[in-house]
Amino acid sequence: MRKVAVVGVGQTKFGERSDASIKEIAFEAFREAIEDARLTPKEIEASVVCTASHYDKQRSPAGVIAEYLGLNPQPTFTVEAVCASSGVGVRTAWALISSGLHDVVAVVGFQKMTELSASEVQEVMGRSGDVQWESPFGTTMPGYFAMYANAHMNKYGTTEENLAHVAVKNYHYGAKNPKAMFQKEITLEEALTSRPIASPLKRYDCCANSDGAACLILASDSVVRKITDMPIWIAGLGCGSSPMMLTSRSLPLTSFGCAVEAAKQAYKMAKIEPKDVDVAEVHDCFTITEIINYEDLGFAKHGEGGKLASEKQTYIGGKIPVNVDGGLLAKGHPIGATGTSQIRTIVQQLRGEAGQTQVAGAKIGLAHNLGGIGMYCAVTILTV
Amino acid sequence: MRKVAVVGVGQTKFGERSDASIKEIAFEAFREAIEDARLTPKEIEASVVCTASHYDKQRSPAGVIAEYLGLNPQPTFTVEAVCASSGVGVRTAWALISSGLHDVVAVVGFQKMTELSASEVQEVMGRSGDVQWESPFGTTMPGYFAMYANAHMNKYGTTEENLAHVAVKNYHYGAKNPKAMFQKEITLEEALTSRPIASPLKRYDCCANSDGAACLILASDSVVRKITDMPIWIAGLGCGSSPMMLTSRSLPLTSFGCAVEAAKQAYKMAKIEPKDVDVAEVHDCFTITEIINYEDLGFAKHGEGGKLASEKQTYIGGKIPVNVDGGLLAKGHPIGATGTSQIRTIVQQLRGEAGQTQVAGAKIGLAHNLGGIGMYCAVTILTV
Repeated sequence: MRKVAVVGVGQTKFGERSDASIKEIAFEAFREAIEDARLTPKEIEASVVCTASHYDKQRSPAGVIAEYLGLNPQPTFTVEAVCASSGVGVRTAWALISSGLHDVVAVVGFQKMTELSASEVQEVMGRSGDVQWESPFGTTMPGYFAMYANAHMNKYGTTEENLAHVAVKNYHYGAKNPKAMFQKEITLEEALTSRPIASPLKRYDCCANSDGAACLILASDSVVRKITDMPIWIAGLGCGSSPMMLTSRSLPLTSFGCAVEAAKQAYKMAKIEPKDVDVAEVHDCFTITEIINYEDLGFAKHGEGGKLASEKQTYIGGKIPVNVDGGLLAKGHPIGATGTSQIRTIVQQLRGEAGQTQVAGAKIGLAHNLGGIGMYCAVTILTV
Repeated sequence: MRKVAVVGVGQTKFGERSDASIKEIAFEAFREAIEDARLTPKEIEASVVCTASHYDKQRSPAGVIAEYLGLNPQPTFTVEAVCASSGVGVRTAWALISSGLHDVVAVVGFQKMTELSASEVQEVMGRSGDVQWESPFGTTMPGYFAMYANAHMNKYGTTEENLAHVAVKNYHYGAKNPKAMFQKEITLEEALTSRPIASPLKRYDCCANSDGAACLILASDSVVRKITDMPIWIAGLGCGSSPMMLTSRSLPLTSFGCAVEAAKQAYKMAKIEPKDVDVAEVHDCFTITEIINYEDLGFAKHGEGGKLASEKQTYIGGKIPVNVDGGLLAKGHPIGATGTSQIRTIVQQLRGEAGQTQVAGAKIGLAHNLGGIGMYCAVTILTV
């Protein structure tokens, strides 16, 4: 296995981006990443474009994006695993490099969701559940994750207040992130009294439809020292899947099998344990997801994720700082861009470039990217 | 680079498959492939699902298919490059194995197109062109490729009869393939007088909307001998891209830049020349495409592809037998399944299992899979 490092990162502001097309947001993130790596498009040997389908009329987005980014005639294609598209795309790019096919690969994740109405987005999202047996009966993402929340509350006594603590933390850090969609603090009271979406999930328990792009430049150990003095190495990768249909999953719905599998693989490859992680980005599409992720990743025992949140152990200074860029809840969740954005945050932390949200002395970081109703998961472990 | 071999192949019949869902056709191809490799689903360490989007309501098909095939909790995701999805998917699976992440990976290509009307399919296909500057003005796939045909005729004197010879050959071989959509011979006269689609392309110059799936099982050199005595090795891989917009391409439109790039990479990696290839599958979505492919792959000089066809040098016994399974024209072109189906045909040829269409003594085979309006290409070279 050839070693692979992240040598460049870029991201647009997340939020409503009616000012720019998908090509333009992809270019914005790509330009920032190649400038960060001090490379030109001609030096990018291949691109992996990551996005979820059906939000755009444009099919086969790798084609338009590679053209607009000046990446022809190099290889390009699209990797899709709904919300985990770019986490999985990073693993794919890693394999293209580690195998020896390429030395420098760009991973471009993007999504534009706000041109669709909220109900159109829910319909599209629902169809990432099974269209034969589930989505025709009206299942939506908040509905699916509300079932997980109710199951977790029922089994472990997790409370709405535990959930609200996650939202308050992530909005706290979103307020410090100039690229976040929501840059404002919220109180526990505001979170607990926000309008109901799918009980027990309320407005601040849910991420919002967003637009944005994030890009990473990956390079092999054979060229990395020519590019940067501060490579951030990919030390561990894991990827897992769960049955798409909730009716096929193990009961109770209090853990994501795909995440447990992905974490196991990534920790083994990186030869580390959960306690070794200094800073983590986990997929908080809903507050309950972050709590379950703590447990699936081994940051808390099963059933104790809510307590970890309420005790503020996932703030900077706590046991394991999580989502100190605002997470999906406050930073935004432009689906295909989330995995690459998470890794960008970890890279900035490990470089010591995270400014007022820097976790002092962070040496090992982890990014956890969940897809759909928890049917895909990619876990990436990075080190200095 | 660890060596990777194809150890199992499977394919559904191509054509109209209103009897089966996408999960069911994927399972049909997968079951045949794992039976061919004498493996069980538990031994498949990851799956790469290949398909073009927007033909189904079902989003994120890797999720439903991995579940239906019994492949949880192993990694799975979708690779998309429109018509080249599964050619590119094979390269991706190769990298997952060669890098050392996995030893045994399934590549499942599929598409169901016939539930849409012909005009709906044209609208969907058009959107794999640029939706900002091209598809809103009514461009369709036959229209795009007719421009290539007219340019080739204008520059090189290629004739409608040259094109018709390609159709006659591919229907000749399709008639011998029990899994082909069209199992009937046609005459040169029938091809030349078939109804106009987009001048100069007529009915028999065009492939048809089809349903189907094809699956390959790939394995690393470290496990291959435990699985089979007859591995077919992946000796060369290439992948290239061209600008999506025709207006951004080099004029005249007589060659696909992405294919020239992919072929160059694959020949170099396999350390062979075009003359070393014993049997080839090339992407004949239209007859003109096959003629241009001969030239882009180095089987004929530029401008002499039409002559190669008319002189019957691409029949068995000729200089280089091409599409002896009927090609896309007669076998059918269920978009996401085409790349894996082409490689299945080459594997059968190199194993000596191709029956009445066997190319005697074939040792080196090549598969050429083009995406969209020639904006992606994957070339795979296989050897005994």
